[in-house]
Amino acid sequence: MPDKRPTPGPRFTALVQALPAAVPFVGPDTMERQAGKPFRVRLGANENSFGPSPLAVRAMQDAVSGVWKYGDGESHDLRAALSDHLDVPMENLLVGEGIDGLLGVLVRMMIEPGDRVVTSAGAYPTFNYHVTGHGGELVTCAYVEDREDPAALFAAARESGAKLVYLANPDNPMGTWHDGPALEAALNDLPAGATLVLDEAYIEFAPKGTAPRIDPEDGRVIRMRTFSKTYGLAGARIGYAIAPAHVIAAFHKLRNHFGVNRLAQAGALAALKDQAHLDWVVDQVARARDRLAAIAADEGLRALPSAANFVAIDCGGERGSDGKMLAHRVLAALNRRGVFVRMPFVAPQDRCIRVTCGAPEDLDLFARELTPALAEARAEHGA
Amino acid sequence: MPDKRPTPGPRFTALVQALPAAVPFVGPDTMERQAGKPFRVRLGANENSFGPSPLAVRAMQDAVSGVWKYGDGESHDLRAALSDHLDVPMENLLVGEGIDGLLGVLVRMMIEPGDRVVTSAGAYPTFNYHVTGHGGELVTCAYVEDREDPAALFAAARESGAKLVYLANPDNPMGTWHDGPALEAALNDLPAGATLVLDEAYIEFAPKGTAPRIDPEDGRVIRMRTFSKTYGLAGARIGYAIAPAHVIAAFHKLRNHFGVNRLAQAGALAALKDQAHLDWVVDQVARARDRLAAIAADEGLRALPSAANFVAIDCGGERGSDGKMLAHRVLAALNRRGVFVRMPFVAPQDRCIRVTCGAPEDLDLFARELTPALAEARAEHGA
Repeated sequence: MPDKRPTPGPRFTALVQALPAAVPFVGPDTMERQAGKPFRVRLGANENSFGPSPLAVRAMQDAVSGVWKYGDGESHDLRAALSDHLDVPMENLLVGEGIDGLLGVLVRMMIEPGDRVVTSAGAYPTFNYHVTGHGGELVTCAYVEDREDPAALFAAARESGAKLVYLANPDNPMGTWHDGPALEAALNDLPAGATLVLDEAYIEFAPKGTAPRIDPEDGRVIRMRTFSKTYGLAGARIGYAIAPAHVIAAFHKLRNHFGVNRLAQAGALAALKDQAHLDWVVDQVARARDRLAAIAADEGLRALPSAANFVAIDCGGERGSDGKMLAHRVLAALNRRGVFVRMPFVAPQDRCIRVTCGAPEDLDLFARELTPALAEARAEHGA
Repeated sequence: MPDKRPTPGPRFTALVQALPAAVPFVGPDTMERQAGKPFRVRLGANENSFGPSPLAVRAMQDAVSGVWKYGDGESHDLRAALSDHLDVPMENLLVGEGIDGLLGVLVRMMIEPGDRVVTSAGAYPTFNYHVTGHGGELVTCAYVEDREDPAALFAAARESGAKLVYLANPDNPMGTWHDGPALEAALNDLPAGATLVLDEAYIEFAPKGTAPRIDPEDGRVIRMRTFSKTYGLAGARIGYAIAPAHVIAAFHKLRNHFGVNRLAQAGALAALKDQAHLDWVVDQVARARDRLAAIAADEGLRALPSAANFVAIDCGGERGSDGKMLAHRVLAALNRRGVFVRMPFVAPQDRCIRVTCGAPEDLDLFARELTPALAEARAEHGA
């Protein structure tokens, strides 16, 4: 073995040296390893336990025999099908490794150290992670009545000279939303020089008319969509961006051209073609939202209206003597009981737990465990 | 629809604005669409047409039912298995979205505009793409007798103050290699402040002793390995890095934590456990190398010795009156005949075509088409 030398290793950039060792989320698999046992039910990652279309399952299983081949670097067939489905030209569509991957490239395209980026306090942590990872400075606006506030976001962009504004519609973690015409109107106040990243990961769950009508060539907006949620393919890592052709061209300068896996392309294509399954999922999720509202009400708690596949349940805004929210204790008690849910990170949203719309039997289990978890949490909270 | 405004769209970084619209490769699927017909045989992307272990196929098919869940962000089980297999601590292992994805993060960790990076003229274009994409300046060294030249690379790193040196062993596109002890000795001349990226994508095809023995905590080296080649999972997008723990920690600051897809993790884990299949693939590839050498010899051409799953066939170094190499014409004639092969990009390696070690029937077809393709190419070349 060669002699070890006293060199300290790679010369990292100053930015990387200064970055904290942060992950946007601790994943459920990691939490299970830490707990030494698996969760009994997985309602914390807004995954779709109704699953993908059986046609997508079959397409992926069939595609495995060809997994020795790289995937198509242009995701051509999927883009063609999306183009038909959305009535958006192919040149305005880019398929990438989920919204997380696409957001990473987008931030890299635009953000250098010191550039400002506006988002809501408590919105998607992975977007913030990418911004911070490129040295961007986050400017945050408060939620208003548990909704993101486009007017405030765009005003903050004007004031700070931000290059990028993030808005999720429907919102995660609260599930709230704006209707399309309201967003179209708000867009007129987006300052010149600021681009809106409109994260529509949950859009198919929302009422018709929630998606604003925006010309794909409108240079003010980059939309992000995914097959992870309504289409049930989170583990496949595939999503897409809708943006002006010259913006898609900029993505092509940076993206990992052969990064989208072959099975995901096959699965997404088949899933897109089974809109009947999608409708069924959307219906099941709507029922689950109602069920979660009823479960909450049974415990004297209020579920927020949601247009996504999860529901925020308000556990009350009073902190205990140790400064912790009741929601925090409820979440911990549920997790201890094998029920994986999450909670918003930032006040005042952190009075809620966020519960994914699972299958009926998942929600049965949640309901069964919520009662004792709440009792434990309330006892601690009063102590 | 809101009024369109005359804004030009996103404010890209100066670097992105200056980057050319380049892709590292035009993929075979794109070439097929351009030609309007599929290739009859796919011998251009160094894919493994012997395919993955049947156990990996089954594991991936079984995993499809769970694709609604995100993958484990730590790829824990795969890293544990790799740790056992390689006798490398888990903290020195990082699983990522193939070597391409890992190289992207690595370059981002280290390279800022103006930083120097040393590689061989004609080595892996995707690495160069990442370097250029971060504003790095490439310094290149010539191949010597169709091999990368570690001494020259390390001397160039010293002279240029490079942060990063790229070396593939075995090399792509030539298939040549250095033995492990030679590299271990050469490493002593790697200058302080330069880090070697040792790309071992093809290492399992190479003779025993080709992989240098390097302590995983040796700060001079970051090794890259993949499941795309010997393990036959190119379409799944999964590979790994071996590096000091503090370097892995730096990757964690930037990487897309939930980017490795769930099916790939399942497939790679099963593939790793089927070393008998790997041995069979390696044996088949060795036979294919011999067969390709014989096919070349039958045409009066020489195949270079290779330690990878492809063979460079020397078509001669004389340019035609139009400046083109015979290899270029042979490649075009083969592609027209539905045989997908590639060629090195840079002189003097561009006197060769590069042919992947396919299954016997693939090579039968290659042999059948090479004769007329060569005849066409030679006629053009002399014209």
